[in-house]
Amino acid sequence: MTEYFIGVDLGGTNIKVGCFDQQMNLVAKTSVPTGADMGPEAVVERIVEAGNSLLKESSLKIDDLIAIGIGTPGPADYPKGIIIKSTNMPKFVNTPLRDMVASGLGNKPAILENDANVACWGEFAMGVGKEVTDMIFMTLGTGIGGGVVCNGELVRGVGGNAAELGHVIIYPGGRACNCGQRGCVEAYGSANSTAARATEAIQAGEDSSLKKILEKHREITCKDVFQHAENGDTLASEIVEGTAEALALMCVNMLHTTEPACVVFTGGMIAAGDALLTRIQRHFDQLIWILKKETVKICFATLGEDTGIIGAASLAQHAMQQGQI
Amino acid sequence: MTEYFIGVDLGGTNIKVGCFDQQMNLVAKTSVPTGADMGPEAVVERIVEAGNSLLKESSLKIDDLIAIGIGTPGPADYPKGIIIKSTNMPKFVNTPLRDMVASGLGNKPAILENDANVACWGEFAMGVGKEVTDMIFMTLGTGIGGGVVCNGELVRGVGGNAAELGHVIIYPGGRACNCGQRGCVEAYGSANSTAARATEAIQAGEDSSLKKILEKHREITCKDVFQHAENGDTLASEIVEGTAEALALMCVNMLHTTEPACVVFTGGMIAAGDALLTRIQRHFDQLIWILKKETVKICFATLGEDTGIIGAASLAQHAMQQGQI
Repeated sequence: MTEYFIGVDLGGTNIKVGCFDQQMNLVAKTSVPTGADMGPEAVVERIVEAGNSLLKESSLKIDDLIAIGIGTPGPADYPKGIIIKSTNMPKFVNTPLRDMVASGLGNKPAILENDANVACWGEFAMGVGKEVTDMIFMTLGTGIGGGVVCNGELVRGVGGNAAELGHVIIYPGGRACNCGQRGCVEAYGSANSTAARATEAIQAGEDSSLKKILEKHREITCKDVFQHAENGDTLASEIVEGTAEALALMCVNMLHTTEPACVVFTGGMIAAGDALLTRIQRHFDQLIWILKKETVKICFATLGEDTGIIGAASLAQHAMQQGQI
Repeated sequence: MTEYFIGVDLGGTNIKVGCFDQQMNLVAKTSVPTGADMGPEAVVERIVEAGNSLLKESSLKIDDLIAIGIGTPGPADYPKGIIIKSTNMPKFVNTPLRDMVASGLGNKPAILENDANVACWGEFAMGVGKEVTDMIFMTLGTGIGGGVVCNGELVRGVGGNAAELGHVIIYPGGRACNCGQRGCVEAYGSANSTAARATEAIQAGEDSSLKKILEKHREITCKDVFQHAENGDTLASEIVEGTAEALALMCVNMLHTTEPACVVFTGGMIAAGDALLTRIQRHFDQLIWILKKETVKICFATLGEDTGIIGAASLAQHAMQQGQI
């Protein structure tokens, strides 16, 4: 008998739901607005409705469904399946989301996990990390999210807060981070900080072709910085080198900590492509030790927008296999 | 039937061998000179002889022995049980140590592991980490060695080189490290670097009560630095603060990476006691984020000189239980 899994990617704006077979082939998927302002019960109803209609359109019965995986931003008590609170969904307070969803989908075993961990697991199980047992995952966006896989398992840590890789301190005493620390990698290597460092430099009087962008649009984006670097602007190039060096430092430090087979970057900034990847690689080669030949594959994620639902479904399958749910 | 395990701690100077029951109670132990200059066969003979005589004096037969654990410095191919080469034992080149030892001890299942990992496992399984599933371990001596336990398993990494924690870069562009990198934690937080930073400061003309020590003994030790800091010397205090800050940075960064329940320090420098521990804790409290309440227990190892043999025996038992050997 073929077994089926449902993966849910619950974001502040949209809920994505996918149905997968046991080889993690996508059978059907859908996306609906979250409607978070209507409160948890209404959101759960949408998830359940979406799940049931995916089963129906695939001619599956509820008993073909083996398990459900749900990815969501924290803070949450993941082992208990409870969202403690949510920036994007303020009506979610101590919401037992996992069990609410499960009870609408045949009371099947379900797992709730941090969305960065879910995306990491997706790439690990079905994407660029498919052949490895140890991997580091970093999302480069507004901030920097992380995932760590060791010995074929997600590293969740003693309180479910592991892999907050954006807040590893790489420049002690450096730029202030929103988290209250100074010198976090997020304050250098994220898309937002790349744009912010360029803006600050121009406001401090440095010359750059980005100056016109700032005057015209009142803001500079990360994409602008990479584009102007590509066009030969000196300041933009320096900023981009700083971004790449910060990320390369993380690659070196992760290599010396968990020795992953690969460090996988994802998020908006990877749109910069080789301009980013080759710079990270070059800084890595300069920073890494000469004591012994050792390296790590530095690469981009490959699953794209379905990462969340694939990761959630695949994590549910893994948790079943391991007797965790 | 009671099961017994032999743990071997193979160092350049001495071989320690211990026999333990299945609760890891020490049944008998011995220590013999390594005699590394006589070559691998002679060294293995000493290990085997020691193991057999421990069994004999405990009135045990070879079939009471279940498995053997061996800890040794690298570089080695641990999964294959082969020492590739050894700084302290130059005649060991591609030596299949694990199988050589096993064949002299009833061909029992055996495991070869990095000595820092073995010590880490000892503290994890039988020492200060006994009640936890996630732990970081750092030895503060000539250099800094490390161990990482996640989800109740040692993190060995894809090539057996994980947990080289001494070479995590905490101050990019900082002091040169023997490994070829700059700014490694080992270049600030080890006993040797603590002494070296004091020596360099005095040679650069800074005033300190340590100056007389340097003139008299031609060298300053880490112990001297802590002692003079205790006596109120300004330079010595600054150096010790630098050591503690480097180690605190590691605690913060490990918390954000694997979120261990505890960071356990061991090695010669922990003789400094509370003078070290309270300083690390204070720097940690200053460095850690205010985003959410989160902490990690910072503490010293408790097993003392038997860590190596306990860790090796206990790792052998664990490997058997997990079907790894």
